[in-house]
Amino acid sequence: MRQDETVPDATTPARRTGGRSARVQDAVEAAALELLLDVGYSGLTMRAVAQAAGVAETTIYRRWPTVDHLTAAALLRLAAVDNPIPDTGSIEGDLHALLTQIVALLNRPRVLRVVRSAAALDDDSTGSIRAARSAFFDHRFATATSIVERAIGRHELPADTDAYQLIEAISAPAYMRALLGNRPIDDDFIAATVAYALAGARAGTRDDTLGNSWDGSR
Amino acid sequence: MRQDETVPDATTPARRTGGRSARVQDAVEAAALELLLDVGYSGLTMRAVAQAAGVAETTIYRRWPTVDHLTAAALLRLAAVDNPIPDTGSIEGDLHALLTQIVALLNRPRVLRVVRSAAALDDDSTGSIRAARSAFFDHRFATATSIVERAIGRHELPADTDAYQLIEAISAPAYMRALLGNRPIDDDFIAATVAYALAGARAGTRDDTLGNSWDGSR
Repeated sequence: MRQDETVPDATTPARRTGGRSARVQDAVEAAALELLLDVGYSGLTMRAVAQAAGVAETTIYRRWPTVDHLTAAALLRLAAVDNPIPDTGSIEGDLHALLTQIVALLNRPRVLRVVRSAAALDDDSTGSIRAARSAFFDHRFATATSIVERAIGRHELPADTDAYQLIEAISAPAYMRALLGNRPIDDDFIAATVAYALAGARAGTRDDTLGNSWDGSR
Repeated sequence: MRQDETVPDATTPARRTGGRSARVQDAVEAAALELLLDVGYSGLTMRAVAQAAGVAETTIYRRWPTVDHLTAAALLRLAAVDNPIPDTGSIEGDLHALLTQIVALLNRPRVLRVVRSAAALDDDSTGSIRAARSAFFDHRFATATSIVERAIGRHELPADTDAYQLIEAISAPAYMRALLGNRPIDDDFIAATVAYALAGARAGTRDDTLGNSWDGSR
């Protein structure tokens, strides 16, 4: 990989390429993610990130004008690491592997703390933190979409399958249990959730009476 | 309704019946809920509740030893009000009405703030606040279970349908969008989510290859 390819995304306002620049970006984003995992959003400060990354605060401000920009970069880094897209050869296997991955992440107390921090943010928070939160999930969903595309190619799912909805049906119950419930997140839960979501995806076009039988106006 | 019937549940440590006692309980729980909706869990104090309810702080401490006990009582009150169990005559209609109700609640900024507060609580918070959080969802799920029981009676769902899982499939995507996403929660979302969940419930026993095709050990 060329060094300038380590500049990963559009969260860097003043984008530059080159060795030192890329190293600084990597160090700052890694430090921001570590701090986010350690102390949560409420404890993330420019000063702490500068100290942990070994760079001047002014260097950080030049590229990431606010803590929210740093948070966005850290969340995208979290979304990208340790999450290879499953490719087991079947849609059941891929969805099972994907949900197992999500459950493993949510079972890490430091990751769950970050998710709790994200959930706690009011919608009237600054626009950039909302943007960071949705960038995280858009990234997660976008990478998972290839699972659905491969399944359509293998004729395992209808060609018009809504990838977002399927991935949401896979992931939302796990997030809800982790954030709000006290039900166990175990192997039975994973298997049952995959079966539910897959049935939903397959019924979507197979049975055109679903979805409108209660409301003649639709 | 007799006055002593306003003593609703087991969240009152020193349970008493009788006119003044019931009125005090009602006033305190109503005040706690209002404060929770107004300022969130972090702003809920014994003193504020006492002032809003017009009772002495010592009266509150005698029945609700901690803020967490008050929070539990307030959450149960929130779970119980304004949420009649739908009974439209069909499982599609009932699930559609239930999700519409959940979406309406999550669209109320004050309610969403309380849900955000609940999601933000670490699992290593005191046991009683975790108990309050799960009491809220257990109450919600328990009341919704009658929807599934009626549908089984009408032969709309398999007799062994897991009510918890079906209600979770209905509600989890809405909670996830409200708490973490920026996708719209609109009529199309409601219709698609109901269709997905219902297909999952119906596939559960209809297709016994689902749920184990990726793992021979199950």
